Amino acid sequence: MTNDPAWTIRQIGYDPATNKAYEGLFTLGSGALHLRGSWEEPLAAEPQDAAYERRPANVSAETMRHPISKWGTFVPGVYDAHPLLGRELVNLPWCAGAIVEVDGERLDMGTVEVRSSERTLDLRTAVLSRRTTWRTRGGATVEIEAERFVSAVRRRLVVQSLGIAVDRSASVVVRMPIDAGVRTNGYDHFASVEPGRGSGASSRLAVRLHSGRTIEVVTRAWSGPGPEWTDGIGPRATWRAATATLGPGQRLDVERRTVVTTALDGQLRTDPASSLAALDPAIAAAALRAEHERCWADRWMRHDVAIDGPVEDQRAIRAAIFHLLRAHPGVEAPLSIDAKGYAGEAYWGRFFWDSEIELLPFYLYTDPALAASLLRFRIATLDAARANARRYGLRGARYPWEADETGRECCAAWIYADHEIHVSPDVVLGLAHHAAATGSDALLKAGGAMAVGEVARFLSDRCERLPGGTCALLGVMGPDEYTPIVHNDAYTNAVAAEAMREAARLGADAGIDEREAEELRRAAEALPIPRCMTDASLILQCEGFDRLPDPDFARTWPDIARPYAQGVPQEWLFRTRAIKQAAVIKLMELMPARFNRTEFERAWAYYVPTTTHDSSLSPAPHAIVAARMGRHEDAYAYFRRLAAIDFDPAHGGAAEGIHIAAAAGVWRVAVMGFAGLLPATEGDRLTFEPRLPSAWRSISFRVCWRGSILAITLRPGGFEAAHLDGPGLPIAVGGMQTTVQRGAKVVGSTDAC
Amino acid sequence: MTNDPAWTIRQIGYDPATNKAYEGLFTLGSGALHLRGSWEEPLAAEPQDAAYERRPANVSAETMRHPISKWGTFVPGVYDAHPLLGRELVNLPWCAGAIVEVDGERLDMGTVEVRSSERTLDLRTAVLSRRTTWRTRGGATVEIEAERFVSAVRRRLVVQSLGIAVDRSASVVVRMPIDAGVRTNGYDHFASVEPGRGSGASSRLAVRLHSGRTIEVVTRAWSGPGPEWTDGIGPRATWRAATATLGPGQRLDVERRTVVTTALDGQLRTDPASSLAALDPAIAAAALRAEHERCWADRWMRHDVAIDGPVEDQRAIRAAIFHLLRAHPGVEAPLSIDAKGYAGEAYWGRFFWDSEIELLPFYLYTDPALAASLLRFRIATLDAARANARRYGLRGARYPWEADETGRECCAAWIYADHEIHVSPDVVLGLAHHAAATGSDALLKAGGAMAVGEVARFLSDRCERLPGGTCALLGVMGPDEYTPIVHNDAYTNAVAAEAMREAARLGADAGIDEREAEELRRAAEALPIPRCMTDASLILQCEGFDRLPDPDFARTWPDIARPYAQGVPQEWLFRTRAIKQAAVIKLMELMPARFNRTEFERAWAYYVPTTTHDSSLSPAPHAIVAARMGRHEDAYAYFRRLAAIDFDPAHGGAAEGIHIAAAAGVWRVAVMGFAGLLPATEGDRLTFEPRLPSAWRSISFRVCWRGSILAITLRPGGFEAAHLDGPGLPIAVGGMQTTVQRGAKVVGSTDAC
Repeated sequence: MTNDPAWTIRQIGYDPATNKAYEGLFTLGSGALHLRGSWEEPLAAEPQDAAYERRPANVSAETMRHPISKWGTFVPGVYDAHPLLGRELVNLPWCAGAIVEVDGERLDMGTVEVRSSERTLDLRTAVLSRRTTWRTRGGATVEIEAERFVSAVRRRLVVQSLGIAVDRSASVVVRMPIDAGVRTNGYDHFASVEPGRGSGASSRLAVRLHSGRTIEVVTRAWSGPGPEWTDGIGPRATWRAATATLGPGQRLDVERRTVVTTALDGQLRTDPASSLAALDPAIAAAALRAEHERCWADRWMRHDVAIDGPVEDQRAIRAAIFHLLRAHPGVEAPLSIDAKGYAGEAYWGRFFWDSEIELLPFYLYTDPALAASLLRFRIATLDAARANARRYGLRGARYPWEADETGRECCAAWIYADHEIHVSPDVVLGLAHHAAATGSDALLKAGGAMAVGEVARFLSDRCERLPGGTCALLGVMGPDEYTPIVHNDAYTNAVAAEAMREAARLGADAGIDEREAEELRRAAEALPIPRCMTDASLILQCEGFDRLPDPDFARTWPDIARPYAQGVPQEWLFRTRAIKQAAVIKLMELMPARFNRTEFERAWAYYVPTTTHDSSLSPAPHAIVAARMGRHEDAYAYFRRLAAIDFDPAHGGAAEGIHIAAAAGVWRVAVMGFAGLLPATEGDRLTFEPRLPSAWRSISFRVCWRGSILAITLRPGGFEAAHLDGPGLPIAVGGMQTTVQRGAKVVGSTDAC
Repeated sequence: MTNDPAWTIRQIGYDPATNKAYEGLFTLGSGALHLRGSWEEPLAAEPQDAAYERRPANVSAETMRHPISKWGTFVPGVYDAHPLLGRELVNLPWCAGAIVEVDGERLDMGTVEVRSSERTLDLRTAVLSRRTTWRTRGGATVEIEAERFVSAVRRRLVVQSLGIAVDRSASVVVRMPIDAGVRTNGYDHFASVEPGRGSGASSRLAVRLHSGRTIEVVTRAWSGPGPEWTDGIGPRATWRAATATLGPGQRLDVERRTVVTTALDGQLRTDPASSLAALDPAIAAAALRAEHERCWADRWMRHDVAIDGPVEDQRAIRAAIFHLLRAHPGVEAPLSIDAKGYAGEAYWGRFFWDSEIELLPFYLYTDPALAASLLRFRIATLDAARANARRYGLRGARYPWEADETGRECCAAWIYADHEIHVSPDVVLGLAHHAAATGSDALLKAGGAMAVGEVARFLSDRCERLPGGTCALLGVMGPDEYTPIVHNDAYTNAVAAEAMREAARLGADAGIDEREAEELRRAAEALPIPRCMTDASLILQCEGFDRLPDPDFARTWPDIARPYAQGVPQEWLFRTRAIKQAAVIKLMELMPARFNRTEFERAWAYYVPTTTHDSSLSPAPHAIVAARMGRHEDAYAYFRRLAAIDFDPAHGGAAEGIHIAAAAGVWRVAVMGFAGLLPATEGDRLTFEPRLPSAWRSISFRVCWRGSILAITLRPGGFEAAHLDGPGLPIAVGGMQTTVQRGAKVVGSTDAC
């Protein structure tokens, strides 16, 4: 076990109150298979097959069901219909458990005395390890050491080791099941379960979803000589079990390897052959570990952000990057990243606007190929978006508010699905951002431009042309979901106009002729950004927003530790200025060059006091905009708040999975806020306007820009930019302009930071 | 069988397409027990225990599940929790069926050849009778004659007779079950079913709801000597069966009487003793029939509206009155009338604003005691309305959008429950209407005034006080549910202001001191009725309504036989001027004296072209307002459209039950539209402004007014007003003012009509 606090997350002891958050936080994954960080031994008090009914609701206001533990096994792309909620990512049979009995007494963190326990996620190597010592009721002291990783190389392979030692002679049984006693959001997606044995001392279990798709899990477990190995089969589980009598100081060491394959593997372009090959005990565990660690070492070289500052900030940044890397389904699969980063059930494994607006920059500026694959998911689902527009009686393409793996709308609540139309222009912004940051139109040529054109066509059709030549988008919901069904939402209008301009610019490549291009340009010009009648510098979130009353937080929000929406009726949210999440502020994060200093100041003063941050998407834009405004310490406070959501286990935020957009926000605040990287859509030159918080003395990271890679270090008063790959390029740091030549390193000074 | 077309509804033959509509239309009831008009013999192809899931939806846009047949047995007040939809009126075990076998072949309208069939609902006597002749596959000709009624006197008693004759020797079996194989909206509300035998050749079946409440059904069946009688018990049914061998021309006559009792009988103030007594065969059927018919004859004397005009108009008016009388739960029960008139499951047996605004006038002007009992339901549930206001963080009382029998909010769709707040001031208007029409404040003194005060307090709290001294009701939904979450809805503001004024007027009786009264008066004055900026005579449905685009019906409504909402996305409804139902026009029905001629004309011209009438509540206000405007033939067209909803079986409207508010609308159009009775809230004098359609040569009805009863006849050029009871009173007809002395008859002439 490593203990470098800048690289590890540690769980000391066992606390039911934080257990589920650690399960989320300790999720391991390869992009093609993800395992929540549940203990090896099941908690007997928390059966995983509890049936319950989860209904369509606003998740911010929903009181989630909170068992102490929730297993999770997710393969991106494996969805099935939920009777009330639409199609969802299926929680597959759990295959990382080990039921351990000592003299007939079953070890359980919840019921057997835990003398000490330490569990560590090593972010550098993506290995989860633990050491736990129990005192049984029978008086034995039992120590378990375990490690697991999901191979980054053989991406459907789980490698585990488990060592058990007892301080006296004792009979020890270790049962290693594949357990289909699992439900997703309380629903049983398994139409049938076929547990059985495989060849060569392996267990095998297949489940068939209601859609007819099958998923097969194969596990192999072995040890050195000594224990007796047996197989068992139950109605919904199969297992291998080792039985041994240990003397004092003797230790039973078990190795286990598991592979999850699905009938979708062809479609997902996931080749599980290399994973299956590793079931052979002849392949040494050390070799599997070494190839896995090499892969992660290479990733960290490219993606790490190192700071000289508080170790908890450093750890949070790395935890964020770890999950962003883990969750990415890989460049082969035509898939995006769901709202919980394939680490929980809460958002049904669906893809939101988060992908293009919140997540994309991290991938775009650290490995553009990963960004491209997220966008390719939208290109691949263009026909579904076209069908969705037709459902609304409109031309073009309307991306769904909540997409499943086929790009169909799955949102069970009409108010979002029908009204939150900004996701479509957000997709266009993502494509434009990719083109601007890479300097390449390859993705546009590979279908992206057609998606741009079709979205613009939808938007143009959705606009009302009003007398007097203006346009309006009526009856929409912007990013602030507490002001629904409004007219001319500032964010929506701004991104819609931008999308229509982009389509007009692409012209024939986007399937847009000159007549239609002119129409799109006119509509883009005619779509207003509403402003306050008595203060033209105040951008209004939507028409009439300023007539809504103050939500009176002093009276209506006694416990600000709880989301605001949980304590007030929804209709109160809908008729006051209470804001769920950044909307105008988000627009200012995205398009800073469009607004002047006074507009920033007026928006900050007006919106911050009534913003609840009930959405985890809210703190990052506030931190970035605060940094841009020179409010360094406000920015830092928002950063800490953001980092705490998932990465402070006491906060409990990761219980239902990783808020992956918030994780991406941590990176954006560090690199685009504090280091001040200007989005490529906002200027041709690679530009940094550093505003480090006082607690940080430097920040170092790599950045990809139009085919070049630079290693950047920023600190108060100075910077270094080392050219690593690609052509040399001009850069600007804190107002100072220079050019970094191929292979060179520039050291400069700047008054900024 | 009677055949007077002005008094009967006939079903000739059998058509699966209209069967369910006839089941609704032929619903019999006593106010305390209602039976849908299903055939005696079950349709084997339509099992009544089919499980399905009905989810929260906008009923206008919902595609209902349409089996060919749906039994219905409803006892007002018997509710139970549905897992997805809230508490609902429970469809109880069916007890009017008879399974008939001839030589082992089961008679079934759907599968056995029907040679002829005629079924008649006699509106005058509330008896349903039929004669059907079958040709069996075995070659026998079988004739069945049957009659049934739900006693208006012994209100939990069903009386049936059944006669069977065969044209050849045949073995005949008649099984008369109590069948608990019934679901409500697809859900099984019966936690347990206990079928059994009763004393004295009776069957007995008890069901226990999930709430623990029990309902017991007892049935007794007998015949003259000859048949052999046996009993049978199944898992969810019990029955008595007669077996006989009939010779050619012989006839088997069976009598059956059934009583439904519930553990709620004390609370419902329903004494089933007289019903139970009638199970004794010693009480002759003729005597039961005679007392029942006397009761209905008395009702018709008081409630009939006779016209000299098309017989189908006369029949529709009487069908409407029949169902209004049948559905009223009686003055003993603290209950109101649900949206389907206790004749179907569609609106879950819940109470809407319909009670006070749509239904009340019929009862108020024909038998004020029946009106008072509807309002007493609101007084009895004031505490639930107070709790509902607290749920929204507001003072006072907020009546629920959809009330169960306890007055709790059961609406499963937040957009209505949260935003459609006008139901509370509507209740106040109902109380004020009662006081004005009866000239009595007895109901106000008996708790009504407190309800007025509490509603006003809620409304005052719900209002925003804006800078400049105006008020606003933000984020509401008016009667037009296609324009949700708007500001300053005209209808809502008008009724809210009226309610606050009424509370201020009642003062101490309403628990309102002078300071609060002044505050209420100020708020009422400051609540605007929005008007078009460029045309002040145009009342706007809500702020900004005139900026919404035209819904372009020519393009978007190809099949106007279907509800508009079923063919377009909801979000389209929400951002165009498409109107579900009368809102400004409804306001003009309610408060005609507040608007001038130009305002009527502008509203008519503006709103009629974009009104879909997707709600059955919509045609009546249009007919009444058209009549008031002198658009006699427009008014008549709306009347015909309204009458067709339920009373033209080909239209199918009654399939899910009776649109009881539309039935009340038929009466309102006749009496308040064509006869032009001005609401008592709009003037102190009993006033008629007759505008008969050209197809009607006269209209005659009784009217109750401030303790007096008059018999009125209006015809072109003249009128008669005969004083029947109470003090003499001044009246106005067509602008002519006169006084009708006690016991006198006035014959007058008028140019109106």
